Amino acid sequence: MTPIYLDHNATTPVAPEVRDAMLPCLGDLFGNPSSGHEAGRRARHAVEVARGQVADLLGAAAQDVVFTSGGTEANHLALLGVIRARGPARAHVVTSAIEHPSVLQPLWGLAREGVEVTTVPPRPDGTVDPDAVTAALRPDTVLVSLMHANNELGTLQPVAEVAAAARRRGVLVHTDAAQSAGKVPLDVTELGVDLLSLAGHKLYAPKGIGALWVRPGTPLAPLFHGGGQERGLRPGTEPVPGIVALGAACALVARRLPTEGPRLRALRDRLEAQLAARAGDVHVNGQGAPRLPTTSNVSFIGLEGALVLAAAPEVMASTGSACHSGGEPSHVLRAIGATPETIRGAVRLSLGHGTGEGDVERAVTALAAAARRLRGHGAPAEGAPRMAG
Amino acid sequence: MTPIYLDHNATTPVAPEVRDAMLPCLGDLFGNPSSGHEAGRRARHAVEVARGQVADLLGAAAQDVVFTSGGTEANHLALLGVIRARGPARAHVVTSAIEHPSVLQPLWGLAREGVEVTTVPPRPDGTVDPDAVTAALRPDTVLVSLMHANNELGTLQPVAEVAAAARRRGVLVHTDAAQSAGKVPLDVTELGVDLLSLAGHKLYAPKGIGALWVRPGTPLAPLFHGGGQERGLRPGTEPVPGIVALGAACALVARRLPTEGPRLRALRDRLEAQLAARAGDVHVNGQGAPRLPTTSNVSFIGLEGALVLAAAPEVMASTGSACHSGGEPSHVLRAIGATPETIRGAVRLSLGHGTGEGDVERAVTALAAAARRLRGHGAPAEGAPRMAG
Repeated sequence: MTPIYLDHNATTPVAPEVRDAMLPCLGDLFGNPSSGHEAGRRARHAVEVARGQVADLLGAAAQDVVFTSGGTEANHLALLGVIRARGPARAHVVTSAIEHPSVLQPLWGLAREGVEVTTVPPRPDGTVDPDAVTAALRPDTVLVSLMHANNELGTLQPVAEVAAAARRRGVLVHTDAAQSAGKVPLDVTELGVDLLSLAGHKLYAPKGIGALWVRPGTPLAPLFHGGGQERGLRPGTEPVPGIVALGAACALVARRLPTEGPRLRALRDRLEAQLAARAGDVHVNGQGAPRLPTTSNVSFIGLEGALVLAAAPEVMASTGSACHSGGEPSHVLRAIGATPETIRGAVRLSLGHGTGEGDVERAVTALAAAARRLRGHGAPAEGAPRMAG
Repeated sequence: MTPIYLDHNATTPVAPEVRDAMLPCLGDLFGNPSSGHEAGRRARHAVEVARGQVADLLGAAAQDVVFTSGGTEANHLALLGVIRARGPARAHVVTSAIEHPSVLQPLWGLAREGVEVTTVPPRPDGTVDPDAVTAALRPDTVLVSLMHANNELGTLQPVAEVAAAARRRGVLVHTDAAQSAGKVPLDVTELGVDLLSLAGHKLYAPKGIGALWVRPGTPLAPLFHGGGQERGLRPGTEPVPGIVALGAACALVARRLPTEGPRLRALRDRLEAQLAARAGDVHVNGQGAPRLPTTSNVSFIGLEGALVLAAAPEVMASTGSACHSGGEPSHVLRAIGATPETIRGAVRLSLGHGTGEGDVERAVTALAAAARRLRGHGAPAEGAPRMAG
């Protein structure tokens, strides 16, 4: 039984092209980019080529890309960086209730320090109303953080509309684009944001690398201090292998987007239609909203999502986000007002470049059979997968 | 002209064994360790094997190792983590004047927030007097941070003595062991410290991975918040490729230490003796002190170190640390009271597993010829290497 990997929102495999681009960094290209000799200069050159590749994916200038250890650090650098750069002055931040924990939790930490945080609830379709965000802006608002696509639902958020309104008031805007980069077009000029986070391992680069794009002139305090790397915004010897991999991955997904976008959207739609036809009572969460082409959050009504997955072990997927520890119910589904039954039955199926028609067909067959068995017996299965991603 | 890499303190090549251990993570072993399915469980297992390998190098228990993005983050987690865990209470920290910038700079940041920091000067031989550190302890001292080996001089610091005295007073001790791990034996029980930092790329793992060993019970606040990974001490999807590489590297250097230690020490001694015999007036900084077997900090008296290196381009080395930006004189050499002439003439030559007798012979020949030429002409060379590492 070959497993079917439908958990690309948790993490993607490293693309062969990305691995190949990275391999020299595990061989001859090992210098410290800060070293003045030939080995150092070659490493510096590789870093700067990759910086340009990342920038190109975003329609940005290379010098405005700061490499980080991943999406969590990029989000922290954006949020803590903006607030710390202001010093101890009073500040108000607006965010949404469906952000990733690596946005919500540092904001809660800032709230404990006295920063005021307004959390805008989403609409039932899994999107945030831009007017609700605008209405939350105050004279002392300094920052809005609104994700580009939700990791559990795939719903695209109205970042450009929010950014336009915020900019008119002089408010900075951060967007966590970890889940959307490479899946839908991204352009920092069109979005109008000031800070944008990327996570390498969501777009076919390895785990342990990410980036923050920072609009020139944005006041930002670094999280680390030391050797002054990354214009002082991210000291520490540059992780050259990860950087080179992220650059190659950004180039790859940019190149593939025009074909992979429509292909995966068609596959995702087929997956949802087939599940509706064959797996009994299912509900697609966020279906009415603009969504990533790759993400399907399906509730098996009357069943427990974890048990459906346990009963279809050839399907690798999750009940929500891999980044949740333990088994708490999804804060995203709760925020959109999903019923307890919908929350209980939810499974996230996320497709990627390696997903083919046959995978979708086999996954539907396995999940539909699992649902039918569970509906027939109601017997609890052992070893339900934990949530992850 | 094959270059001779004598800049292992700036960064090491990735060992072939380490690369091979890492490669599966760039292929099939791509799961998110937080995922409950098979791909996730395999990744989790790989992470935990590596955690054991890192712990073994330190004589520690696996569960006390926290993976970070590198030495800079490990140092920040140790220092900021201890101070932030105490809340806003008054605190005093003791450190040395020859610490790495990734220790000194976060401490300066804490000093701006009201933490009192005492910086103990080193002795002229490049070591810190343990009695001077003990004398600096106060009733409100909460933490001592003393590096295990200095990155520029290679001098070993009296960490065990300091830790014994500090522990008697209930003071926590952190040591930055980035430069000594794998070069001299390390045992957290013998050292008696509470926190110990490692940097992968100094011991044949790739850049972008590090670790902090934390004695059980040490109060430590995380730098990041989010998905709860690494027992909540370091949230963010685990960088599995780097983690696996660091584990393999720790196993490798532990295995090689008994043979590589004496071999490199003999080579280093030969390097210094030959330079003294053939390169004119040279002075070895820190020579009288216990030192790493791999590091030689040599001042070409009357010359400028950067120009000596520029005149011997086949030798890849640095005038100090790769982590210095620009060309400021070494804070380490200044702190030990080196004369301006000694500081000006300094070159750091650092050996590694790939260094052979022929490399040392060729390096001596090139450096001695460069020094003779420069002493003969006094002509300035163009393109002097910057400092890095």
